[in-house]
Amino acid sequence: MREQVEREAAQAAAAVGQLHDEGVTRALERAAELVGERAGTIAEANAADIEAATLDEGALDRLRLDNSRIAALREQLVQLAALPPLERDEDSWTLENGLRVSVRRIPIGAVGANFEARPNVAVDVAGQLLKSLNGAVLRTGGAALRTVTVLVDEVLRPALAAAGLPPEAVGLVRFPDREGARMLVSLPHVLPLVILRGSGETTAALAREAAGHGVRTLAHAEGGGVLYLGAAADPAKAETLVEASLDRLGVCNRLNLLLVDAAARVDVAPVLERLGIGVREPERIGHEWANDPEHIASVTVRTVASLDEAVALANRETSGLAAAIVTEDAGAAERFLESYRGTAAFWNATTRFTDGFALTGSPETGINVDRVPGPRGPVTYRDLYLRQFRVIGDGSQHR
Amino acid sequence: MREQVEREAAQAAAAVGQLHDEGVTRALERAAELVGERAGTIAEANAADIEAATLDEGALDRLRLDNSRIAALREQLVQLAALPPLERDEDSWTLENGLRVSVRRIPIGAVGANFEARPNVAVDVAGQLLKSLNGAVLRTGGAALRTVTVLVDEVLRPALAAAGLPPEAVGLVRFPDREGARMLVSLPHVLPLVILRGSGETTAALAREAAGHGVRTLAHAEGGGVLYLGAAADPAKAETLVEASLDRLGVCNRLNLLLVDAAARVDVAPVLERLGIGVREPERIGHEWANDPEHIASVTVRTVASLDEAVALANRETSGLAAAIVTEDAGAAERFLESYRGTAAFWNATTRFTDGFALTGSPETGINVDRVPGPRGPVTYRDLYLRQFRVIGDGSQHR
Repeated sequence: MREQVEREAAQAAAAVGQLHDEGVTRALERAAELVGERAGTIAEANAADIEAATLDEGALDRLRLDNSRIAALREQLVQLAALPPLERDEDSWTLENGLRVSVRRIPIGAVGANFEARPNVAVDVAGQLLKSLNGAVLRTGGAALRTVTVLVDEVLRPALAAAGLPPEAVGLVRFPDREGARMLVSLPHVLPLVILRGSGETTAALAREAAGHGVRTLAHAEGGGVLYLGAAADPAKAETLVEASLDRLGVCNRLNLLLVDAAARVDVAPVLERLGIGVREPERIGHEWANDPEHIASVTVRTVASLDEAVALANRETSGLAAAIVTEDAGAAERFLESYRGTAAFWNATTRFTDGFALTGSPETGINVDRVPGPRGPVTYRDLYLRQFRVIGDGSQHR
Repeated sequence: MREQVEREAAQAAAAVGQLHDEGVTRALERAAELVGERAGTIAEANAADIEAATLDEGALDRLRLDNSRIAALREQLVQLAALPPLERDEDSWTLENGLRVSVRRIPIGAVGANFEARPNVAVDVAGQLLKSLNGAVLRTGGAALRTVTVLVDEVLRPALAAAGLPPEAVGLVRFPDREGARMLVSLPHVLPLVILRGSGETTAALAREAAGHGVRTLAHAEGGGVLYLGAAADPAKAETLVEASLDRLGVCNRLNLLLVDAAARVDVAPVLERLGIGVREPERIGHEWANDPEHIASVTVRTVASLDEAVALANRETSGLAAAIVTEDAGAAERFLESYRGTAAFWNATTRFTDGFALTGSPETGINVDRVPGPRGPVTYRDLYLRQFRVIGDGSQHR
């Protein structure tokens, strides 16, 4: 198994040098056509996956590629093809000695992507990696492997070939068991970076495993939005934003922890009741209800004595994904925005906007919540590059 | 010991929120003055360190803080204080729904820095971390600990206090043994990032240890520049650039691997002989002569059949720090620059310019050779931030 993964990764890495923007645009456009032309084969494989699956209802729904999802897949590819390529020159200047210096964005190489049994993610994430001129090695939950194999072998690879690009730029872990995910994060020389979609303990364990191998991951094992109703919160806005933060319950950027300032003239009980959301006491304050299917319609609520206490709680006890303040006091808002250290900070807006596409117009490759320089928060294809200094002289310059 | 390191790190992390650009500028200016005022105490501690040291001549020289180095230290602090603060707004735009989005650069928190027994690095790296509004926890080789303790306790901390900032923003591992370095890279919650100065197996081992703890490092365990004399190399430029690449031998960006195209009309023997540099066969092609004191005046030389072979060697068998091509053929230069994947690529210029200060005018915090998005190549204070999205609405926006 290791040999297969290593081979697909090495081939994808070797193919990267032949990718170029014009070719990738053509490949993405061709992939969109192929999704239509091979719709029957895709549907067949998907039916077999569903037939064999032993999943709960939600997971089964995400596994299903019905006609509307296949249409959405085509549309995504068309839109991705139309987005501007990554600008490769970040900055440039000339030194006094005449050296011309530029900061360039070069491809990473092959990048791994691990995702649960949602076959549309295969096309989505591979498309974004290609868009940034990187190779991709995909690994999906075993339940979706038939569908994803068809999407790789009958859509993505033929589309690359049709565009004159090496088809092996997209690789696949072709084994259904979890060991495949561990392989994916253990090959630093060919896969220095792996995107981990999804959350929960499985993702956390994979991220740890990757780190032990010197492989960097972009991941958010834990998510959950914080909403702080400040002392000067407008009650109507507070209610609107609680509701806007709970429009979907299975997503990482939904309201998870509701902090109510003791001085706020807001009663959250009526709106939560109207929405059918229970106030529940978690094992620990960062517990993410979105990952707790039995109690998904819950929020954690805390009364806090001050803005400082709210920020301290958000910084110390939560995932660091996103937090929002509701207040009419601009000074308080500024203090909140300046002191919250998560990946996205909101004022009178819902954390549900913590989303690459919603914020930037580029589809989201993944979300990363680590606390080091580099792509953080929603990550898009525009983040998937290495920095390289380029220096041009006339041979005369010396230290 | 762990408790001491953890305490200094937690205090530094907690102090970060109180740092601001104006205060840090004052603190750096005050530190410059204090270096002068405390020159006697510094010299005394340094004399005691040197007295106790059992180091080779080179290391002993680097440990010594003589008057000219103390003067240089002051000058560095004055210059650092005068540099512009990090621009906190990277980009901003307004969405159609009215949300105002900005991409902000926020402090990382406390950052660790490990360096060999060179006391001036303590002030240098702590100053740069403060400049970027981050805290610092320093760890130096035991041989320099007396000097560095004085620099922290009698220069940096009093300077912070004089500027009205929390002195504990700069912490120190106050134990001489190597275990202190391992502690420094094992505290992901308070020190998510550690800068590893220096190179060699010790650095590589620390980087692995850090990764196992989920701590990110900026490091270059191995360096060494590659110089490729292309088929169309100008012989005079080739000679000049070989010489310019070997002006110092103990540095990571010097010429380490000299690749000569079989078609190049260049004889490298005379210039190497004139410079007193031997051609030596390494155990492996990436072997870094700068880290090999007994054979430091050596280079590895290979004849290559083509530009592609040169790039493949540089990409596969070397550290990925820097490579240069000497050629009059602009097309060949372009191909080389496009296909080399290290942190810095040069055309008719020496890899010796792989240096933060030389390229950007900001002092270099460290060099990083990993292959993932984020600060790569020479790293300066301008790279030491976290990305945060900031979103401001009027309460009406929803998904």
